[in-house]
Amino acid sequence: MPRILRINTRTKEFKFEELGEYAGLGGRALTSRLINNEVPADCHALSADNKLVWAAGILGGTGAANSGRLSCGAKSPLTGGIKESNTGGQFAQALPKLDLLSIVFEDKPEDDADFSIIEIYADKVEFKDASAIVGKDNYPAHEELKKIYGDKVVTALAGPAGEKCLAASTIQFSDPHLNPARSAGRGGMGAVMGSKKIKAVVLDPDSKGRLNVVDPDKFKVARKRWTEILLGHPVTSEGLPAYGTAVLVNIINEAGALPTKNFRYGRFDDVAEISGEKIAEVIESRNGKTKEGCHTGCVIQCSQRYNDKDGNYLTSGFEYETVWGFGANCLIKDIDDIAAMDRICDEKGIDTIEMGCALAVAMDGGVLEWGDSKSGIELLKKVGSSDAMGRILGNGADFVGQAFGVDRIPTVKGQGLPAYDPRSVKGIGVTYATTPMGGDHTAGYAVATNILKVGGDVDPLSKEGQIELSKNLQIATASIDALGLCLFVAFAVLDTEDSVQCICDLVSAAHGIEYTADDFIALGVNTLKDELDFNRKAGFTNKDDQLPRFFREEKLEPHGTVWDYTVEELQAAKV
Amino acid sequence: MPRILRINTRTKEFKFEELGEYAGLGGRALTSRLINNEVPADCHALSADNKLVWAAGILGGTGAANSGRLSCGAKSPLTGGIKESNTGGQFAQALPKLDLLSIVFEDKPEDDADFSIIEIYADKVEFKDASAIVGKDNYPAHEELKKIYGDKVVTALAGPAGEKCLAASTIQFSDPHLNPARSAGRGGMGAVMGSKKIKAVVLDPDSKGRLNVVDPDKFKVARKRWTEILLGHPVTSEGLPAYGTAVLVNIINEAGALPTKNFRYGRFDDVAEISGEKIAEVIESRNGKTKEGCHTGCVIQCSQRYNDKDGNYLTSGFEYETVWGFGANCLIKDIDDIAAMDRICDEKGIDTIEMGCALAVAMDGGVLEWGDSKSGIELLKKVGSSDAMGRILGNGADFVGQAFGVDRIPTVKGQGLPAYDPRSVKGIGVTYATTPMGGDHTAGYAVATNILKVGGDVDPLSKEGQIELSKNLQIATASIDALGLCLFVAFAVLDTEDSVQCICDLVSAAHGIEYTADDFIALGVNTLKDELDFNRKAGFTNKDDQLPRFFREEKLEPHGTVWDYTVEELQAAKV
Repeated sequence: MPRILRINTRTKEFKFEELGEYAGLGGRALTSRLINNEVPADCHALSADNKLVWAAGILGGTGAANSGRLSCGAKSPLTGGIKESNTGGQFAQALPKLDLLSIVFEDKPEDDADFSIIEIYADKVEFKDASAIVGKDNYPAHEELKKIYGDKVVTALAGPAGEKCLAASTIQFSDPHLNPARSAGRGGMGAVMGSKKIKAVVLDPDSKGRLNVVDPDKFKVARKRWTEILLGHPVTSEGLPAYGTAVLVNIINEAGALPTKNFRYGRFDDVAEISGEKIAEVIESRNGKTKEGCHTGCVIQCSQRYNDKDGNYLTSGFEYETVWGFGANCLIKDIDDIAAMDRICDEKGIDTIEMGCALAVAMDGGVLEWGDSKSGIELLKKVGSSDAMGRILGNGADFVGQAFGVDRIPTVKGQGLPAYDPRSVKGIGVTYATTPMGGDHTAGYAVATNILKVGGDVDPLSKEGQIELSKNLQIATASIDALGLCLFVAFAVLDTEDSVQCICDLVSAAHGIEYTADDFIALGVNTLKDELDFNRKAGFTNKDDQLPRFFREEKLEPHGTVWDYTVEELQAAKV
Repeated sequence: MPRILRINTRTKEFKFEELGEYAGLGGRALTSRLINNEVPADCHALSADNKLVWAAGILGGTGAANSGRLSCGAKSPLTGGIKESNTGGQFAQALPKLDLLSIVFEDKPEDDADFSIIEIYADKVEFKDASAIVGKDNYPAHEELKKIYGDKVVTALAGPAGEKCLAASTIQFSDPHLNPARSAGRGGMGAVMGSKKIKAVVLDPDSKGRLNVVDPDKFKVARKRWTEILLGHPVTSEGLPAYGTAVLVNIINEAGALPTKNFRYGRFDDVAEISGEKIAEVIESRNGKTKEGCHTGCVIQCSQRYNDKDGNYLTSGFEYETVWGFGANCLIKDIDDIAAMDRICDEKGIDTIEMGCALAVAMDGGVLEWGDSKSGIELLKKVGSSDAMGRILGNGADFVGQAFGVDRIPTVKGQGLPAYDPRSVKGIGVTYATTPMGGDHTAGYAVATNILKVGGDVDPLSKEGQIELSKNLQIATASIDALGLCLFVAFAVLDTEDSVQCICDLVSAAHGIEYTADDFIALGVNTLKDELDFNRKAGFTNKDDQLPRFFREEKLEPHGTVWDYTVEELQAAKV
């Protein structure tokens, strides 16, 4: 029977609880419900009132393909609203082995308290001195943890940026390849972890438990069909495995929506230097890997192992959004430098999307030249140190803008916009504007239908149909996040008739209930309602559901498009 | 006939306009109406869409006692809401001599444009190269301007902080003693000026015009009575002239409401070292001046000339709030160091209240030790340079808090709270929470009635009567600011039966109209309505009308008080 583990980070007391009012929830549905129920919306995100909640999904630990994603929730230090930051890695697979669905970190130690490593066992929690790894980058810190706990240890780390409570800091989770390369990237979850003086969390490597699947026979059938669905769609079986998510670089550039030079243009002259095809070529020439999973049980394998010029491992989880952020958005074309920047972000524990936006804003502010990757690398290395410039950069694009007097800030609700210009992919713009998460593409990935023509065909340049598209995708995404499924299953789900039924069969068989398509939809709708409710209590209004003015005033070439939605029109995208 | 001068800072075009729809307004009523009418509430405060508006009051230039205050308005880079920042100095006296009521700076030059000195004449505007003073501190910059324009020149300067567009930057106006010592301090007006690449504005020193007083005989009578009223009240005729505003140090400490160590305690052990009495003693021992006016025509004379140990001029306008901010709030007791910090703020063009809050937050963040005035001085000197730490500090308390992961941030709507702890002067807390200006004592100075027993006696520790008190004071203050009167006239006005009638007589005689007490009240009410309307459009909600949670959770000694108003209760303080 899965439980919730509550840990008081001040008193070091802990409690294993039944799910109670949270029964039936998981992943994002659980983190958002709990935050909305238990965290005062007007608290400071770094105060003792905030809670950091990690939850496996409803299908977590069942072994269903791609069901091992973890939701990290809290009030966000970056947006001031609710946040679910979704990550791969082994954590959500390992939690159920301890009969745990979720861990909730509460309260906070005194300001002068030391950082801890928190060990989680099936029946106890131990706080250990973290001084050997405090201040260390994530890879060396993870190496130290492997020395103590063995190679198979499953870890979560606050990097130097999280220790310093910077608003763009991530939590890094260990992947199947024993690297701390998977990020709960967005919204500053690392800062919440740092504020509670948690340097690392390790799960008992000797745990053997597994979630009981109530009806194994029925589950086996559904699980087989589920894998077939994922392996039967061209995006999940061909595009993503071949080139990783960076397959999008050429596609989005061709669509005229690759934000270039801090969202000034829709195409990048040097796109060939940073394309997914180019990256795959480099990876192959250096004996890297073009296909890897971010967690055990993944059948899509969109991750990669990128080696440096000497053939040594440099980075993994090197996503399209990262390539775009440091690449086109900063006019940087050296793919090795971009890969190095990705690695630094994983080392320091900072969000690559936010840093891509922040560096471009810094370039607009004259801090470094456009395209100057070497200076960009040096700046990123400062994040997490006591250096003041590192503190500015590590707090994200809005913060850099204020520090350097820049008025061109591509953020919504304080969060940097990702790799799709909303003027020429209008559906994703609706998501940016209206999701309770702040500027976020994963919350309702309308790029699928606007550009990739998955789940239908909605013209990316026209206003028609975008509101409904974004709303439906936001709901489906919230459901998928609650189930613990990887978002990329959506490509196959949108194009396969029996896919939702198959998901429902998985849940029904695993939990011994009758789960219907209506339940699936209600899961997403209720999650969004919790999130919108929290944000309202935190002071957000409809007026916060809008893109910055420059998107409305400046035409984006090559299509000459502007952002032309009113706040009132956008409200229809909210549940 | 007074006019509005509009200057386009990009095209360098200008236009002298009749008042038109703004007829009958002045000061804060004019700046707030114009901002609300003409500035898109959702624009970036540093963008071309924002406007910087300076306006003399309705009684400006008439020679009525204490009628020479200037209102500076814009969308605030600090709060994101509307701002009227009120200042002394000679500017509002000199404007009417050019037949000008107001100057509106619009649009903004390209990012790489050079800074200008803008010369204002009665019939033209000239943009001059500012390279000789760009980057210079305000005193040396003002010296350069005196060399060019003569000793009597009336100037407004964006200091190094304003040039860098920092959110706590001031505009410094020249005083009658030829120093740039008067600040439009709050809300980052210097950053708006800097964003428009204006380094300085100078008014034609040869101008001779004067506002026509329509009925000079009637005006003379009213003016005489007005002066009598001001000289007849103990606060304006005795307390303020004797010790300056720092007379409050001992009074507020005695009341248990002197915020100490970032608002942790209500009394400061070393209060005797920073009291008004002590300051007066030091000033006298060094042949300074304990009485000076901030503008010609002031009969209160609450300003001072503070000399250093060698008897040389160090600073002026050294207010209670400054003494508190760098003193009790930072546990600094060396009054010469505090005076030096005041001077640095005037040199760089940064708000002393915001810096007092920001330094204390930095102390909480471990940047410097409590009470370490020497490090504080070094940090303040960095503001306005390209140093990253200077950029952090110069953006205010919220910004410092985010940079250093501190969750104890005494701000409302992003603006640092001043020198009165709201738990033990509850009336001022109501003003902090509800004024459209953000945390601001001048917007409805309930300290008068709570502590000084002016205009009645409302127990500072009780909730009773505070909402009504604050509301009435907010209205009266908005009227006073619109008239161009110094806020300190309110002490006398509140306690003198015929004072409002006398003010109405001044307006009636000056403008040849029948001005009534109802008009006086409506002026304030309508100003507040404009401001609240702008803030609503900018996305503020009732939820923003509240103090930070720690005021509600931590008891303040010696009275053991907490802040115990709900957001709903506070709404009644708004018009």
